[in-house]
Amino acid sequence: MEVEQVLHMNGGLGDSSYANNSLVQGKMIEMTKPIVADAISKVYRSLGSNSKTLCMAELGCSSGPNTLLVAAEFVKTVYESSRKHGRELPEFQIFLNDLPGNDFNCISQWLMPKFEEEIGNINGGYCFVYGAPGSFYGRLFPSNTLHFVHSSCSLMWLSKVPQGLEMNKGNVYIGSESPVSVSEAYYAQFRSDFQTFLKCRSEEVVVGGRMVLTILGRKTETAASKECCYIWELLALALKQMVHEGVVEEEIVDSFNIPQYTPSPIEVKKEVENEGSFIITHLEASEISWAACSATNNDTANHKINAYNVAKCMRSVAEPLLVQHFGQSIIDQLFVKYQNIIWDRMSKEDTKFINVTISMTKRQE
Amino acid sequence: MEVEQVLHMNGGLGDSSYANNSLVQGKMIEMTKPIVADAISKVYRSLGSNSKTLCMAELGCSSGPNTLLVAAEFVKTVYESSRKHGRELPEFQIFLNDLPGNDFNCISQWLMPKFEEEIGNINGGYCFVYGAPGSFYGRLFPSNTLHFVHSSCSLMWLSKVPQGLEMNKGNVYIGSESPVSVSEAYYAQFRSDFQTFLKCRSEEVVVGGRMVLTILGRKTETAASKECCYIWELLALALKQMVHEGVVEEEIVDSFNIPQYTPSPIEVKKEVENEGSFIITHLEASEISWAACSATNNDTANHKINAYNVAKCMRSVAEPLLVQHFGQSIIDQLFVKYQNIIWDRMSKEDTKFINVTISMTKRQE
Repeated sequence: MEVEQVLHMNGGLGDSSYANNSLVQGKMIEMTKPIVADAISKVYRSLGSNSKTLCMAELGCSSGPNTLLVAAEFVKTVYESSRKHGRELPEFQIFLNDLPGNDFNCISQWLMPKFEEEIGNINGGYCFVYGAPGSFYGRLFPSNTLHFVHSSCSLMWLSKVPQGLEMNKGNVYIGSESPVSVSEAYYAQFRSDFQTFLKCRSEEVVVGGRMVLTILGRKTETAASKECCYIWELLALALKQMVHEGVVEEEIVDSFNIPQYTPSPIEVKKEVENEGSFIITHLEASEISWAACSATNNDTANHKINAYNVAKCMRSVAEPLLVQHFGQSIIDQLFVKYQNIIWDRMSKEDTKFINVTISMTKRQE
Repeated sequence: MEVEQVLHMNGGLGDSSYANNSLVQGKMIEMTKPIVADAISKVYRSLGSNSKTLCMAELGCSSGPNTLLVAAEFVKTVYESSRKHGRELPEFQIFLNDLPGNDFNCISQWLMPKFEEEIGNINGGYCFVYGAPGSFYGRLFPSNTLHFVHSSCSLMWLSKVPQGLEMNKGNVYIGSESPVSVSEAYYAQFRSDFQTFLKCRSEEVVVGGRMVLTILGRKTETAASKECCYIWELLALALKQMVHEGVVEEEIVDSFNIPQYTPSPIEVKKEVENEGSFIITHLEASEISWAACSATNNDTANHKINAYNVAKCMRSVAEPLLVQHFGQSIIDQLFVKYQNIIWDRMSKEDTKFINVTISMTKRQE
């Protein structure tokens, strides 16, 4: 079964019914707010006054508090700008994309009414919101129709587990002791998927249109770097404990690998330049503490609560894949172990996720 | 609570999880196939070759076997025509609209994959399908973007129960003995809603774009005509039996009225002409036997089975409204009575639903 099919069945990538995962993503969106605001302003200013419809896509939208967060910013920013410059307010089309298994009913019944309330002050303007189910590693929109594309915390997911990971025994992702062939296999899959993504979007985005993508990644050029692999090494550790206890067979752990890749800014840049349709206007790596998985940051010293929240956050992401490979029965026990390991590490070191954020504009052909 | 809110909670108008309702609608769509095919051909022929995207909306799409039926026709007809005339195949955008309570998850997970399989032979072409939750008595799409609009079995639903039905005691819709003020109140609500509908669509449909609407209606000019009111009079009869048995209070029945209006072709024509944006190219009333609620028509003499299916079909339509007014407890009993009454009548007379189908094209401004 393809990874996307598994994720379909479980509410899509980064299912926000799990509040902790939404919290991290919400904080990431908050951190990239100036980059997003800048991109929106510029795309609106670059458009002629005869652009009657402004079209935005949120890729990997999930169905939680962040689903329409950037869309609301988009509408409000354009509204303010049009008022300031005496331009006629355009009509908005917001397309919310995620895999077909995402909870689109939740979006239409709960999130859209809240969104309409929030942007209700754009007098006389129209904002139409649609669900766009499908994989962003394929075409989703007609040619030359999108003005702004946003995606947060989704593009590190690959379309499938890379081939050639037979040597990655004892790891679930690139581990510090994985052979080079493992990093290479992961990187090759990322390059192929990201090229497909860029090609599809280059067809869909209008000239001068913009994309802001935030991807879970790393700062250094070492794919096996601790900054991106540590969280998964600790999960592998929990699995190994279960092998040791005879609960899980070693071969089953050996054959489990997650379908994600955490790229560096340079790797992202290289693919954008190779594809050639977009000009990079901003590229940065930023840090977010593992403790951001907790609702408040006030109590960073409470490592037990923080570890609980990190484990919960990771569970929301990894559970569908783990269940497919190991079955449901080991999951609770696995995450108790995982949480204890995370607790131990968080009390000893300052652990962080790295985000790579890229802002780009579609080049004249 | 507004009618639309109640219907939201129950899976939208004409929830197709009830197979019998889908059957009737499917047969209606089958009957109007030549009108739809003609409209699609003409809209495609009238477009210049520089129309890169063809945009269709299915209004009141539900989430069943008919949801993408006309969309598939649309894509196939245009594909054949483009091949025949050596024109470049456009990209398709299909918007599926229903109230926010409709099961959009069912559409994305089950219906869209089937649809993609069905239209899979349009080599190299793109067909993008989106969910568009909202009421069609409001704007749903940007100005001048729709090429073809289809709606079947949805537009007889009003946005709310008309005001001024205090005198409609003992009836649930216009009854043969309802005072004239009742027909007038219903007609006024229909006129207001249908005007709103036409105004919204006139903004959204491109010049030369087309709409085909099939509405449950009547042939004659008498709003209280048996052809459209009988099915509801029999429901009122079942309710009265329950009043007689002391199960339901008379006042509760007296204050229950359904939010629908079954117009005549002339009434539909009048509103289209009043609004003024569309030219009528075809207008007809057609009949469909109540027995069409059954999967096979072979056994029309089996009135008991047919009555069961008609009652089931009506239940799928009326249950949400009945539950809101009477509570859940009476529903099973009510529909047993209703089914028996229908059985009796179907064995004595040839009972039919009437459809009004209108095809129209957007006028040059």
